[in-house]
Amino acid sequence: MNFTIKKALIAVTNGYTTTDVQVVNGTITAIGEDLDIIGTEINGEHKLLLPGFFNAHTHSSEKWQRGIIPPLPLELWLAHLYDFTPLDTEQVYLSALGTAVETLLSGGTSVVDHLVLIPGQELETITTAVRAYQQVGIRAFIAPLIQDESLTAGLPGGKSLPEHESYFRPTAETLGIIEEAIIKFHHPESGINILVAPTGIQLCTDALFTGCAELSERYQLCRHTHLLETKAQKKLAQEKYGCSGVEHLDQIGFLNDKTSLAHCVWLTDDDISILAKTQSTVVHNPLSNLRLGSGIAPVLKYIQSGVNVTFGCDGASSNDSQDLLEAIKIGSILHNVTDFDYQSWITPRQAVEMASLGGAKGLGLADQLGSLTVGKKADLVLYDLQSLSLLPRTDPIGLLVLGRPVNVVNCAWVNGKQIIANGKFTTVDVEELKTELFNRSQWETRGTSPGVAQIETHYRQVMGL
Amino acid sequence: MNFTIKKALIAVTNGYTTTDVQVVNGTITAIGEDLDIIGTEINGEHKLLLPGFFNAHTHSSEKWQRGIIPPLPLELWLAHLYDFTPLDTEQVYLSALGTAVETLLSGGTSVVDHLVLIPGQELETITTAVRAYQQVGIRAFIAPLIQDESLTAGLPGGKSLPEHESYFRPTAETLGIIEEAIIKFHHPESGINILVAPTGIQLCTDALFTGCAELSERYQLCRHTHLLETKAQKKLAQEKYGCSGVEHLDQIGFLNDKTSLAHCVWLTDDDISILAKTQSTVVHNPLSNLRLGSGIAPVLKYIQSGVNVTFGCDGASSNDSQDLLEAIKIGSILHNVTDFDYQSWITPRQAVEMASLGGAKGLGLADQLGSLTVGKKADLVLYDLQSLSLLPRTDPIGLLVLGRPVNVVNCAWVNGKQIIANGKFTTVDVEELKTELFNRSQWETRGTSPGVAQIETHYRQVMGL
Repeated sequence: MNFTIKKALIAVTNGYTTTDVQVVNGTITAIGEDLDIIGTEINGEHKLLLPGFFNAHTHSSEKWQRGIIPPLPLELWLAHLYDFTPLDTEQVYLSALGTAVETLLSGGTSVVDHLVLIPGQELETITTAVRAYQQVGIRAFIAPLIQDESLTAGLPGGKSLPEHESYFRPTAETLGIIEEAIIKFHHPESGINILVAPTGIQLCTDALFTGCAELSERYQLCRHTHLLETKAQKKLAQEKYGCSGVEHLDQIGFLNDKTSLAHCVWLTDDDISILAKTQSTVVHNPLSNLRLGSGIAPVLKYIQSGVNVTFGCDGASSNDSQDLLEAIKIGSILHNVTDFDYQSWITPRQAVEMASLGGAKGLGLADQLGSLTVGKKADLVLYDLQSLSLLPRTDPIGLLVLGRPVNVVNCAWVNGKQIIANGKFTTVDVEELKTELFNRSQWETRGTSPGVAQIETHYRQVMGL
Repeated sequence: MNFTIKKALIAVTNGYTTTDVQVVNGTITAIGEDLDIIGTEINGEHKLLLPGFFNAHTHSSEKWQRGIIPPLPLELWLAHLYDFTPLDTEQVYLSALGTAVETLLSGGTSVVDHLVLIPGQELETITTAVRAYQQVGIRAFIAPLIQDESLTAGLPGGKSLPEHESYFRPTAETLGIIEEAIIKFHHPESGINILVAPTGIQLCTDALFTGCAELSERYQLCRHTHLLETKAQKKLAQEKYGCSGVEHLDQIGFLNDKTSLAHCVWLTDDDISILAKTQSTVVHNPLSNLRLGSGIAPVLKYIQSGVNVTFGCDGASSNDSQDLLEAIKIGSILHNVTDFDYQSWITPRQAVEMASLGGAKGLGLADQLGSLTVGKKADLVLYDLQSLSLLPRTDPIGLLVLGRPVNVVNCAWVNGKQIIANGKFTTVDVEELKTELFNRSQWETRGTSPGVAQIETHYRQVMGL
């Protein structure tokens, strides 16, 4: 697992330089010119070396429904999604594999999987995802998606709906499952991490949030949740707490410097101050926010307020891809229409830092990951700058972030282990994966959804449509 | 040039069907089950057949600066772009070739190139672009970019700047060059079309607009121009005409059903009515509009008002790609954040129709192109639905539009001539193109720009920044 990359381009202040990088036992041990070759020699010529990015929020199993859910806002889209469960563990395995592969092919070496659990097979689901991520070799942050209220509770006024039911499992039991998963699977040194991850204020009681916070204290874990993704959730928070969702999560002690919050579209300036004070991280999922019409998260304000921001693809049925470079591009340029003063706009270099160091910060790992620094772990990606999509040669990071790179990841390493070599996976048979995905699915269209029919009238009325 | 596609998937009302398609002498002659094989047999199994899309607005030579211009609004970005001209004809050739290749690889079979002309070599520039497009075999609509005012005239209050100069060439002479180009190159039957294409109200006098309109009448040509791309242009129009830019173009007779208008970000409801009345087409360039912070064009309003809308990539230094599927995806989902009522949102099928039939309409060719219809020209694309990025199988058009398809174009034909077969170009050596692009460029960063320095203070002041 030792190797030396020769003559790769790396970014330095105001430009680029050609350099060598030594990696020993999974750690970057030297960066400089004319280094001795330790271990395998990797030809870095005409290639750009960057720290691996973080796909800091996704739901791997949504891959089974990508492309098929019609244009709908989150609340109705979710009802559609729910119509077509349940999954089986083989699907969980294949979609986790596919999510890891697509993340790596777009520069991501870490994935935060807010993992949908099969009811009654919660630990099996987690076991399966762990198996897939270990097989591919991506650094995995598995955040089992838990809730203790049923779907209609997630709508403003939804508890008064005739079909509203209470959740099928007591909160304590759910927390018990998570604790079991933590004990069994949380092994950061082997690249598998468990996060406590309540779905969000719309589907969780305070007991679930505080129970998760306690587990995270006891086992020193990161916390992850959705936060104020939609206007409906903002309304719901007022209804449920009499204050904003951010104020409430702060009051019950859920926010800290190891908490990452997916979406954060509907925050006020006061809410933003709370995120800055608690040093929470925002995971920006621009494509999902557009696809579901959730809105444009005030990312420039976050940055100006000192809130750490990183990027996620979100699940593949609300995006509908797992291409991290696409999320980074759109997540950077989207905000230019929210502030006329171009001096605030995100530069390509800033975007790269948000996607790498920003991701590491959100998981409490900024001292170990997220930059090309001697002593940090070797989660690295080497981009082929001779790809048609990155030609002619101009500014490599500008091309990577603002262009539409395809077939550009030449090599990728996680913890010093090579996962991609010359554009091909060394750990997983992609052709076999394609065959499995193909054989277990069919071309179809989808018109009406019973789940949507049940709540649409209420949704339109409560949202003033 | 005769062929029969066997067993391809095509879209039908509410679903898909497997069908055969016969093409004879460049025309679709039959669509149906179990057709006889005429000419070459093409295996359409597990592939989706769609009409070719239109890359309805780009500037091919911007490819030389993609990725390198910092985040800036149009007016300052343009000053940056101008700093690094002039081009030479070999560059024009290679960037036109590259633009055609990237357009075809993302489903486009037609390109509208608002072509930057080398001063003093205007006809040579057009000759070169024609040569490149004929070599690749894409259907080309060359719209030579002309102006008769200098750059500072494009800023509100810009004519009062000390460095403001008048344009170097009289208007009549410019129109003479265009007429010569029309006579020499406008041969629709061979796939090369010339459009009259003044830059836009910001850099053109009425004499240039009306001169172009006269040429378009005389030679039955389409018209193309930029329109109200930025807030600065909206201000300028009021300053210059005392009315909106749309009202003015209508008054001087520039708008008709063969006029396509790039951007249209800053239109009022009255302006939209004028576009509907004149049956003009809006070319939506979502990525450029985000990258330059121009704004979000009111595309849902256009559609609701009956205005035809299609998509463009815009030039590769304001996007910075030429991936038409990316423009179609973002150009569809972006508008979900502008209207809470999801019933107005663009569906993937609508997006495909906008990109194909919408493009044909904007060029007065809806009777000949833009749909899979017997009697229409065979500008066709066959997508490989077994690509990893389109798996698992769900709704093929949903996957194509909402996903992030890579390496998916299996075959492409223009006027019945095969340009791509099994994912490879038959007409152009892409490896050689890559080598040429690589050898004629270098990795660099770009800090300050003399052009920007000259106008930035004025720009900030006039825009209230």
